[in-house]
Amino acid sequence: MKIDLNADLGESFGAYQIGSDEELLKVVSSANIACGFHAGDFQTIPHTIQTAKEMGVAIGAHPGFPDIQGFGRRRMDFSHKEIYNLVMYQLGAFKAFAQSNKTDIQHVKPHGALYNLANKDQEVAEAIAKAVYDFDPTLILFGLCNSFLVEAGQEIGLNTVQEAFADRTYTDEGLLMPRTEPNAMKHETDDIIKQVLMIVNDNIVISNTGKTVEMEADTICLHGDTPSALEHAKEIKAALDQQGIQISSFNKGR
Amino acid sequence: MKIDLNADLGESFGAYQIGSDEELLKVVSSANIACGFHAGDFQTIPHTIQTAKEMGVAIGAHPGFPDIQGFGRRRMDFSHKEIYNLVMYQLGAFKAFAQSNKTDIQHVKPHGALYNLANKDQEVAEAIAKAVYDFDPTLILFGLCNSFLVEAGQEIGLNTVQEAFADRTYTDEGLLMPRTEPNAMKHETDDIIKQVLMIVNDNIVISNTGKTVEMEADTICLHGDTPSALEHAKEIKAALDQQGIQISSFNKGR
Amino acid sequence: MKIDLNADLGESFGAYQIGSDEELLKVVSSANIACGFHAGDFQTIPHTIQTAKEMGVAIGAHPGFPDIQGFGRRRMDFSHKEIYNLVMYQLGAFKAFAQSNKTDIQHVKPHGALYNLANKDQEVAEAIAKAVYDFDPTLILFGLCNSFLVEAGQEIGLNTVQEAFADRTYTDEGLLMPRTEPNAMKHETDDIIKQVLMIVNDNIVISNTGKTVEMEADTICLHGDTPSALEHAKEIKAALDQQGIQISSFNKGR
Amino acid sequence: MKIDLNADLGESFGAYQIGSDEELLKVVSSANIACGFHAGDFQTIPHTIQTAKEMGVAIGAHPGFPDIQGFGRRRMDFSHKEIYNLVMYQLGAFKAFAQSNKTDIQHVKPHGALYNLANKDQEVAEAIAKAVYDFDPTLILFGLCNSFLVEAGQEIGLNTVQEAFADRTYTDEGLLMPRTEPNAMKHETDDIIKQVLMIVNDNIVISNTGKTVEMEADTICLHGDTPSALEHAKEIKAALDQQGIQISSFNKGR
Repeated sequence: MKIDLNADLGESFGAYQIGSDEELLKVVSSANIACGFHAGDFQTIPHTIQTAKEMGVAIGAHPGFPDIQGFGRRRMDFSHKEIYNLVMYQLGAFKAFAQSNKTDIQHVKPHGALYNLANKDQEVAEAIAKAVYDFDPTLILFGLCNSFLVEAGQEIGLNTVQEAFADRTYTDEGLLMPRTEPNAMKHETDDIIKQVLMIVNDNIVISNTGKTVEMEADTICLHGDTPSALEHAKEIKAALDQQGIQISSFNKGR
Repeated sequence: MKIDLNADLGESFGAYQIGSDEELLKVVSSANIACGFHAGDFQTIPHTIQTAKEMGVAIGAHPGFPDIQGFGRRRMDFSHKEIYNLVMYQLGAFKAFAQSNKTDIQHVKPHGALYNLANKDQEVAEAIAKAVYDFDPTLILFGLCNSFLVEAGQEIGLNTVQEAFADRTYTDEGLLMPRTEPNAMKHETDDIIKQVLMIVNDNIVISNTGKTVEMEADTICLHGDTPSALEHAKEIKAALDQQGIQISSFNKGR
Repeated sequence: MKIDLNADLGESFGAYQIGSDEELLKVVSSANIACGFHAGDFQTIPHTIQTAKEMGVAIGAHPGFPDIQGFGRRRMDFSHKEIYNLVMYQLGAFKAFAQSNKTDIQHVKPHGALYNLANKDQEVAEAIAKAVYDFDPTLILFGLCNSFLVEAGQEIGLNTVQEAFADRTYTDEGLLMPRTEPNAMKHETDDIIKQVLMIVNDNIVISNTGKTVEMEADTICLHGDTPSALEHAKEIKAALDQQGIQISSFNKGR
Repeated sequence: MKIDLNADLGESFGAYQIGSDEELLKVVSSANIACGFHAGDFQTIPHTIQTAKEMGVAIGAHPGFPDIQGFGRRRMDFSHKEIYNLVMYQLGAFKAFAQSNKTDIQHVKPHGALYNLANKDQEVAEAIAKAVYDFDPTLILFGLCNSFLVEAGQEIGLNTVQEAFADRTYTDEGLLMPRTEPNAMKHETDDIIKQVLMIVNDNIVISNTGKTVEMEADTICLHGDTPSALEHAKEIKAALDQQGIQISSFNKGR
């Protein structure tokens, strides 16, 4: 059995260092690398690509809204054409560094408010999917399980990968509990590992009301932005290793 | 006889409209298009590429320092690695739109303070030339006549093009009079046209002291940011047309 | 009879020149001056304050969302505390220049998406009103007629001024037709002047369905960002002058 | 005997957390708080002012160049008028929050490249001193010992305070060794404490060549941006406490 683990990386900005990239790269198989709009800059991108390559981790572009101060988490009103263009811009910038580091881009995963919007707004999803497809139709598009983003990617002819979250609570409809809700995040290591193993082994999660919900995910998103998140990421890897589940990205004969 | 005319285009930014792109595109054969760091954004780049393509004007990336408020004209201290990376980033972003508009990039010309630095600082010139070469060795690098930038481009194996200015005064050494000098700019249409014709026909300019200076330029830079600059650009084209000198870029069997 | 005319000014940014400030300052009695977040910068603010002062035009701070590329017209999700703080920041920056130019601030008018939000979202309105009040309780708050912004200003103890628009169409409810509607803007000079005179003389407008709607406005917003808008502004002033209606701000014994 | 200890604080930016503000505020008597141009934002300023106030630490504005990505450490070419205006802008923004938190600003200390420039370029120093004086002539200007900045402050009529550095090596001329030199920084706790005590007790430092150099400093700059810097700050305080030297700012009957 196999699963991909992904995490957001390369989110430092100038003197501002964030995240535990080196540690996380020992855990994940796919790295979503910030492209300079919501985080990251022209220095972090090549550095992170190079480090991921050395550690055998597949790389993906992680485009976001142009808002460093808000870390791309703030919803901003952009037209669909603007969304197409801002994704295209970031893909190009990212590709330049992948190419000059002699490596290939595996996937694209939108960030933060752009990701959330893309999962639930069909036209935003289509704008992103079209930008990715027009840029390079061989790229894999990552989206939330059962989201418009995954649908739009499939519709236009991209390979898509459905994503689940290790430490987020799900609703009965299989959607993420909004972060504004008190129980949106799981904090107990045992709960988190249990959810990961259910997703991998049984393709289900248990919702906040106790209902069994289908969750056919091929990649699981981890975080490393706090010491405990990093700790959880390491324990998830250990649990998967122990069960003999292979942690593997998509560009390696999977 | 042939000459290339180039101008900076696509320098609008959001609601801020600048320049007379449509008018200038009727005059020039090569367009230097801002890449979003000193001017331009993810909306202006595809629009300008598309317009230039429709009007048969060759396109080039016009990377600059990350300083919209200063329009890239302010010197900023970057390491050579940072310069390599910020040029690489902008080339990638630009390429994404060239490719999605199904057209090719002809050339790269640095902007403003980056251009000035590159012409007189060997290591900056080398950092830029290396970024361009690593990105795509078939791109043509534009630099000031006799500059370190042209030298660095040739050294690394790029095709280079030497540039002269229609409306700038030259020193006895063949360098541009700094803009801080009172007579740095030529304002009389006759003077400007005379300088252009001397460059094209005789490969010389007359310096501020009246000396004849060699000027082997293959492209001449025009401006369109003021009504009179645009008027001069049109009259330069008319004068060249009248003399039977062909205005032509480099990517068309030149 | 008296009316205040206001317009947005000082919206240039670095090399990007926008608007016809000098011309508009001959028409209006109150200037809303951009504070550097959505437009304007540390150079335009003192310059515009100085020019307004010389021409006898009252000045106001015009805070907006931090988004130069979007000109503050894009809705962005900020918490109420963030809105309070971003208004406070801009008021302080603006005040420094008013004070060093030895002049007083008359009013505050939020810009663009922040203005629209403040007019219809009570908590945003309250956050802005509180920031203005905490900064200086003698400032006048400008808001749309019958808006939450005016209400919040009054509630907290600020002097408020209700604003109407010369060239915008109103709904039956006395609200502005959204700019996305085809007839949101009035383009005919006669229509625009008629609306201004109805507001001043009769405190009414005629809605898009032909209904008479009350409109008790003490200031009318003009625009100068296009040649025709500037032309309309001049003709509005001429029409008011002809009727003997005094164009006057609020800080002059009004 | 008394000495002021100062440190840069409030340098976080949106999601980017930097520094150990709470820990440093237990050590220093004066806090230099970033104003949003090189670091800090409209959220960090009020938060840091409030925290400093609660902990009895005097606050100062810490204006810098507008370059978040470069953390204000990159030299940028600004005219003297621009420097005057960008300092004025930041002082105003900062003041708004000091006032709304019902506290007073004690001092102004320029940041990074602006500080370095101000210490050695007379006209830059004068532009800054004039901005501070025009804004509020009762503010204290912090500058490097024997710098143009201190001189310009005195010249215009400001109270000035000379600053020395705990962990920087000095040249025979009493200037800071450039950070590009290998021995620019002192790393050994003993060396650092020895330098601090020499400055406080004897008004001297020992230069990199072993020479005794006069150093009449009234404030000493500490850092907290690395765990070891924070450790040194704490040990400096302990050493001063042990010698009965009072750590005290300037606005408390000093």
